[in-house]
Amino acid sequence: MRLAELSRRSGVPTATIKYYLREGLLPPGRRVTATQAEYDDAHLKRLRLVRALIQVGRVPIASAREVLTALEDESLDHNSRLGTAVWALPHGPEPTGEEAADETRAAARRTVDALLARLGWEFAEEYGDESPAHRMLVTAVGTLARLGYPCAVEDLAPYARAGRQLAVTDLDLIERYDSPEAQLEAAVALTVLYEPVLLALRRMAQTEESNRRYGQGSPQACGGVPDA
Amino acid sequence: MRLAELSRRSGVPTATIKYYLREGLLPPGRRVTATQAEYDDAHLKRLRLVRALIQVGRVPIASAREVLTALEDESLDHNSRLGTAVWALPHGPEPTGEEAADETRAAARRTVDALLARLGWEFAEEYGDESPAHRMLVTAVGTLARLGYPCAVEDLAPYARAGRQLAVTDLDLIERYDSPEAQLEAAVALTVLYEPVLLALRRMAQTEESNRRYGQGSPQACGGVPDA
Repeated sequence: MRLAELSRRSGVPTATIKYYLREGLLPPGRRVTATQAEYDDAHLKRLRLVRALIQVGRVPIASAREVLTALEDESLDHNSRLGTAVWALPHGPEPTGEEAADETRAAARRTVDALLARLGWEFAEEYGDESPAHRMLVTAVGTLARLGYPCAVEDLAPYARAGRQLAVTDLDLIERYDSPEAQLEAAVALTVLYEPVLLALRRMAQTEESNRRYGQGSPQACGGVPDA
Repeated sequence: MRLAELSRRSGVPTATIKYYLREGLLPPGRRVTATQAEYDDAHLKRLRLVRALIQVGRVPIASAREVLTALEDESLDHNSRLGTAVWALPHGPEPTGEEAADETRAAARRTVDALLARLGWEFAEEYGDESPAHRMLVTAVGTLARLGYPCAVEDLAPYARAGRQLAVTDLDLIERYDSPEAQLEAAVALTVLYEPVLLALRRMAQTEESNRRYGQGSPQACGGVPDA
């Protein structure tokens, strides 16, 4: 197909497609004349993934390129490619130099390591803070600690159990795709695209639970929460 | 305490505190001389919440003010104040005019409504897309659909079940606080502060699960770990 059709079928404006081509996020088409190139279904699928990363995941161009490079790195096996691609996704702000060095962060790290030991998550333990998700978690626990909110191992454990169940669901979803290539693309896209799904459902469920506990018709109707 | 001590105890620079005071995110102190004011523990706690919203939740100043106003609205009962405050949090990008009107969004809305009916989430059904979390979910499902990824009711249901469990954990955590005021502050802060905890744990759990399914039993076989 020509650029115009690629644009029509993907819903991505031609100017944006040209930008992705220049930035190396999309492989060049097969040149048919001096001014025209031919694109195929692989371009359409790649364009879909690039849109997911950039529009929904708010992934910067350079990180998106890193994710895509990992997906295509034939020197790695399936599992390693997947890991490398997901590691290249953004993981929130890195701590400032001051935060990285302070005692609260060291304590947060000990909490996270104790949590992982309790869960028996051996790969997470082994990678330690080489893993961006581990650093993201330490930063989040450090912030909770600095602001005086609950963040002990037993507070975090139920969130970890939910994460474990979600990961099983995630990988089941990914295994519906036939080829290893399609699985890798789906893994990256679904990691990113299901984050707002999960956060929205948690907030909606909070409303349900809050109404169940404190709403009209509940045992504590209208009175709000009794003082302790 | 004076401004300098409030800064020292909160870890927030005095210039930032002055900015929050000017923006109305922090109530003024009790004026003791023409140039000095006295602050108390309520200021310290409020400052903690403002930091959580702005630094971690990336909540814009105007939304933070809206959240805080809801928390203080004495015309509302506890449950309504909580709902209003959480609704004022940011919920990701609103759909473009074109997206809002298209058939994919209408289909996504039908999927979300079918999901809520199946779950029996009556408040979410009743509020419909008055609720920002509902709109956020419809947007996320619409994006999945537009990009051709799985997003049927049965695909979403496991994420909703996880959300439901998390909400119970969230509200248990919040009920550890004694006063209704402290519970409201904690509800808003913990909604925001536990989001990166959850997302990081999901990604770490994906690595565990991926290694369990595809790894070769050795950390070296997995996940893009750079050789030290």
